[in-house]
Amino acid sequence: MRIGIIGLGLIGGSLGRDLCLNPENYVWGISRNESTCEQAIAMQAVHFAAQDISQISQLSQTNLIFICTPIAAILPTIAQIAPYLSPQTVITDVGSVKVAIVDAAEKLWDRFIGAHPMAGNAFSGIQAAELGLFQGRPCVITPNTQVNFQGDFQDNFQSSLDALNLVRQVWQSLGAVIYECSPVAHDCAVAWISHLPVFVSASLIQACTEEVNPIVADLAKHLASSGFRDTSRVGGGNPQLGRYMAEYNREALLLSLEKYQLVLQAAIAQIQANDWQGIEELLTQTQVNRSAFLD
Amino acid sequence: MRIGIIGLGLIGGSLGRDLCLNPENYVWGISRNESTCEQAIAMQAVHFAAQDISQISQLSQTNLIFICTPIAAILPTIAQIAPYLSPQTVITDVGSVKVAIVDAAEKLWDRFIGAHPMAGNAFSGIQAAELGLFQGRPCVITPNTQVNFQGDFQDNFQSSLDALNLVRQVWQSLGAVIYECSPVAHDCAVAWISHLPVFVSASLIQACTEEVNPIVADLAKHLASSGFRDTSRVGGGNPQLGRYMAEYNREALLLSLEKYQLVLQAAIAQIQANDWQGIEELLTQTQVNRSAFLD
Repeated sequence: MRIGIIGLGLIGGSLGRDLCLNPENYVWGISRNESTCEQAIAMQAVHFAAQDISQISQLSQTNLIFICTPIAAILPTIAQIAPYLSPQTVITDVGSVKVAIVDAAEKLWDRFIGAHPMAGNAFSGIQAAELGLFQGRPCVITPNTQVNFQGDFQDNFQSSLDALNLVRQVWQSLGAVIYECSPVAHDCAVAWISHLPVFVSASLIQACTEEVNPIVADLAKHLASSGFRDTSRVGGGNPQLGRYMAEYNREALLLSLEKYQLVLQAAIAQIQANDWQGIEELLTQTQVNRSAFLD
Repeated sequence: MRIGIIGLGLIGGSLGRDLCLNPENYVWGISRNESTCEQAIAMQAVHFAAQDISQISQLSQTNLIFICTPIAAILPTIAQIAPYLSPQTVITDVGSVKVAIVDAAEKLWDRFIGAHPMAGNAFSGIQAAELGLFQGRPCVITPNTQVNFQGDFQDNFQSSLDALNLVRQVWQSLGAVIYECSPVAHDCAVAWISHLPVFVSASLIQACTEEVNPIVADLAKHLASSGFRDTSRVGGGNPQLGRYMAEYNREALLLSLEKYQLVLQAAIAQIQANDWQGIEELLTQTQVNRSAFLD
């Protein structure tokens, strides 16, 4: 299969390394950065790399293109390459939000299938790319069921089902655990377990920082330990990633934040009412319920 | 020195193991559990152990007593042992809240000095006791300056200063990093970095659990990963410990929760207003500020 990867960072690079292991694949890559192109070739993440799409001679013969750019560049990239592709080419992405991408991407390219492989390590960039990064990790594929699976659009249905099968098959071959759902269900789920935690955690850091008594502020800094470290970790992460979560998953994030506020307010009311039995019951529930998320 | 330890769990047991290394110390311990007494002697956490204070023949010759019981038992324990002690005996505790303990404890025993060693491991009980547990860890000592350091109470000042010196010296000998402050400053600081995170984190678990759409709820459980794991860890901890934090540090915890709500509301307002630059600036600040707590 002829495969293109646009954006050679941690995800694009790791994807390329896995795909290049299969001798039946030919993989080309695009990065704006020349040294990234050189590194990608050297580490066998691609067979050929270039800084610009015009340098890819096999563009019209490519079967599958992965867009692995930052979220904001996904749609412009599809618009840019669309004129040069065969109509059979399937485009997919690896963006962490799906509603904001999938609807618009399908308008640009009808054989687009959104996906979100949930894998990573503590680093970024091509130098952090690793073999087997997606092994055993979830990959959510988000066919736009409203557009593609209505019986009235038989042709569209056929072509999209075929595109969906291709994307599913490739991720399965890399060992990913596949989930399929609508873009909205994906965005709501990641709002809960990935985007909400960032703002809950960042607000903790910010609130602690606003302590005005210098003795208390200084003591808190010296006493902070593993509890604060873990709870504040994602709130102290990459600011641009956090901004994109909010910007591109605004609706689902706001819904989860509003629900969170109500839950927090209920706990505060229990403390104000000296309802210690109620607090212990709440924390007994959360102890049990947490394990349902982390089996 | 003759030292008593009442409550032979992780903290009491670890304290005893360190103190027994010094041949000049004689250490007795109390646990309600007979097998804990046997284990404490076997692992050299104490020289002698008993289930009841009446079995401690050296009680009136003891120089320093550590109360290492759960918070709720600290004051009743002091009231119980006070009649049998020499007036020179110093009593200290290891409780994680101080205002609720120190004022009342001083009324029961004027040579009481509150302390809070901030150390632990993932386990509890005497079997988890380890040598050097307090090495390099903070120990906050909370002399009640209002009562003890006013020039008008010269006698009280002298005796308490001497008691304070003794408690400081023992913790220093175990390698702890000593901080001294008022009980209120201690309770406010631990509310920020230890008790607030528990309720922020528990509310995250609870909010995620209340998702009503079964597809989203199920997907969220499967997709939860390191971000959710870390942010939810302390909210899924020991429910009784969490309850005691709220019950015994109610005022400081409520202040920090109210501040937290305001900070969270401000972030929500930025998202509602599509103020993405503002969100990125907030997250840039929290990234920088977090490191001030974790140097």
